[in-house]
Amino acid sequence: MKLAKIELLNTGNELLLGGVRDLHLQWFGKHLFPLGLRIARQATVPDGSIIRTALLETFSRADVLIITGGLGPTTDDITRELVAEILSLPLKLHQETLERIQERCRARGIPFQPRMERQAMAPEGAVVLPNDQGTAPGLYIPPVEGVSWASPHLFLLPGPPRELQPMALAHVLPRLAELFSGTEKNECRIYRVVGMGESKLEAAIGLSISQRGDLEVGYCARPNEVDFRLIGKSEILDEVEPSILAAVGDKLLSTNDESLDEVVVSLLRKAKASVATAESCTGGTLANRLTDVPCASEVFLEGFVTYSNESKSALLGVPSELIAHRGAVSEEVVCAMAEGALERSGATYALATTGIAGPGGGSPEKPVGTVWLALAERGQATHSWMEKFMTDRLTFKQRATQAALDQLRKRVLASLTHD
Amino acid sequence: MKLAKIELLNTGNELLLGGVRDLHLQWFGKHLFPLGLRIARQATVPDGSIIRTALLETFSRADVLIITGGLGPTTDDITRELVAEILSLPLKLHQETLERIQERCRARGIPFQPRMERQAMAPEGAVVLPNDQGTAPGLYIPPVEGVSWASPHLFLLPGPPRELQPMALAHVLPRLAELFSGTEKNECRIYRVVGMGESKLEAAIGLSISQRGDLEVGYCARPNEVDFRLIGKSEILDEVEPSILAAVGDKLLSTNDESLDEVVVSLLRKAKASVATAESCTGGTLANRLTDVPCASEVFLEGFVTYSNESKSALLGVPSELIAHRGAVSEEVVCAMAEGALERSGATYALATTGIAGPGGGSPEKPVGTVWLALAERGQATHSWMEKFMTDRLTFKQRATQAALDQLRKRVLASLTHD
Repeated sequence: MKLAKIELLNTGNELLLGGVRDLHLQWFGKHLFPLGLRIARQATVPDGSIIRTALLETFSRADVLIITGGLGPTTDDITRELVAEILSLPLKLHQETLERIQERCRARGIPFQPRMERQAMAPEGAVVLPNDQGTAPGLYIPPVEGVSWASPHLFLLPGPPRELQPMALAHVLPRLAELFSGTEKNECRIYRVVGMGESKLEAAIGLSISQRGDLEVGYCARPNEVDFRLIGKSEILDEVEPSILAAVGDKLLSTNDESLDEVVVSLLRKAKASVATAESCTGGTLANRLTDVPCASEVFLEGFVTYSNESKSALLGVPSELIAHRGAVSEEVVCAMAEGALERSGATYALATTGIAGPGGGSPEKPVGTVWLALAERGQATHSWMEKFMTDRLTFKQRATQAALDQLRKRVLASLTHD
Repeated sequence: MKLAKIELLNTGNELLLGGVRDLHLQWFGKHLFPLGLRIARQATVPDGSIIRTALLETFSRADVLIITGGLGPTTDDITRELVAEILSLPLKLHQETLERIQERCRARGIPFQPRMERQAMAPEGAVVLPNDQGTAPGLYIPPVEGVSWASPHLFLLPGPPRELQPMALAHVLPRLAELFSGTEKNECRIYRVVGMGESKLEAAIGLSISQRGDLEVGYCARPNEVDFRLIGKSEILDEVEPSILAAVGDKLLSTNDESLDEVVVSLLRKAKASVATAESCTGGTLANRLTDVPCASEVFLEGFVTYSNESKSALLGVPSELIAHRGAVSEEVVCAMAEGALERSGATYALATTGIAGPGGGSPEKPVGTVWLALAERGQATHSWMEKFMTDRLTFKQRATQAALDQLRKRVLASLTHD
């Protein structure tokens, strides 16, 4: 079976004006691959009638066209109407959707506005894809024969990712899997590596593999984390895997797309251990990342965000003389923070951070980007270390918490292996 | 002068496989607007010869085409060669670039590879745009007359944003500004509104404005926040602004692209006030959002992430009988949390959250998504309220903290107005 040509058409002036960053291409790219499918081409066009031109262009070359945006209640939302017109399909009121929208308004105490009714209109023959996160449903329109063309399988989906993604998972991906079930599936393995740069990773494992010619190789670097991607036949992937695992050792975070946060929570649950956090410069990012993971409450007891010096003393028992003498950003203070959090929380482990996130607050001895980190464990010496992340404030918070969580990951992993 | 048609063509398999998220469209959108220019259309295509098709399509309709990616040293990087072939321009070695690449290799201790020389080739008549962040230079190719077409102004730029952005700032934007200096510049105003849905907003202000015909109207909705965008002549924007401000009242968050976090920190600084946080279900998101803002340390003293019941009692003094009797997710407990944080921190205000983020932990009386919020202020009665956000865990955390921060914003705003 030849590879299905799937195209993605994003609509919306805000995407072209830079107000919003597109998330759909990446999302579909990731989620189609396991089905043996890929996006062949993607385009972004403004709101309005130019959507018609872009639509008609794809008809001759695409098997599937996924259109995002323009299904909302406001006057610039015209995708539904344009598609119905091009395909000469009358729009009919979908009673169930209307009731769903009215019910949603009632539940949220929002008055039902007459213009919301447009969102309950569906072209004849379309399958309505319910929206559990918003008002506008999606639509699936099977191929229609026109005078001089045939339309591809059309999916009209809402623009906001929090509405589109659950809808696509429930209704678009399963349908595509069924439509193209005969497609040959290559396997994609992602080795997520932490604490090892892209070029070092390539030097260690990538070069000999990319020269083979029977595997597609790719890299994706994020703050302090690199995905090494291999696409090919399973037996070939099995053949090269041992050399990859040997080269990355305990720097391998996951092979199943799990984030560091998820890996840490899952290891702590396995070890029946718990963690508390004491944060200065990372300002709650550590606690926030841990509590992004469902069931975090089983392993995360409490977190202290001690931004001011006074709060470091009052909440964590860091002696104020120590802060005055050594400075808030110091090895002694970060250890006292971690040990204070450990003692007060009763947790198995405590992580602490103190540093200078910037843009202000740096000095020649302690420039912006400096951070001291500590990991305290019941009955063990506290481990502390310094890092420098010369970057913007938000990336700094991300990288500092990445370093802290990775240290905890390795510690819990070792405890599980030694048992 | 009619609006220049600028198109953006992104090349690269990694964009279509989801390994990398495109940053170029948003970047160019933001940077072209102040020049009176816009991206009319954007497309992503894989590496390889399909780039030729995509290129030729644009020739008939674009004045400018910006192509990103495919300038590197590897075999799948063929943009430069394809463009030269289509335009029948011979490729010539650019000696200065070759020396630059060789020097770069020396400085970094990387052996110079013969295939790197390809990156120093430039089509005849092209302007070489130096790359200060990597090896491959960019290229500007002025319009060329072909047999049955004329090429647009072509810019070939490297794919990595850290190479492309400085190059575009130095060499692409100034050239476009000069080429299209006669373009009329419209103004873009964004009214960011919080606590008012898209349809309600349009009913309140948008309809009469979109019917005028001399303003371009757009909406962009995010969790609990909507941007209402107007583009047009400054005098017309001035004319309609008073009616917009009157309609949205204190639901107006900002008109300068500031986020709620930034607005709250800036209002607190203006009021010389401070805030502490006590979070259960939001698990540090409140503290994290406040500390994302530079200078947060002037107004944010400390935060408590009291995930377990024990920590609510130990850290915030919430009586354990109250938790046992009313439940951790209750009005009484959220008020006690906020008041405990206020007292212990000495801050002017304290925000507290307790709820059920899910996916587990719900009950018929308190379903997943239920959250109690409180705002305590020195010398004032504590304000508490309940919300229900039936959504995924991460959006729940985002919306609950949005509601809490917006309440604080309105309170501080009122205190400043009354003074």
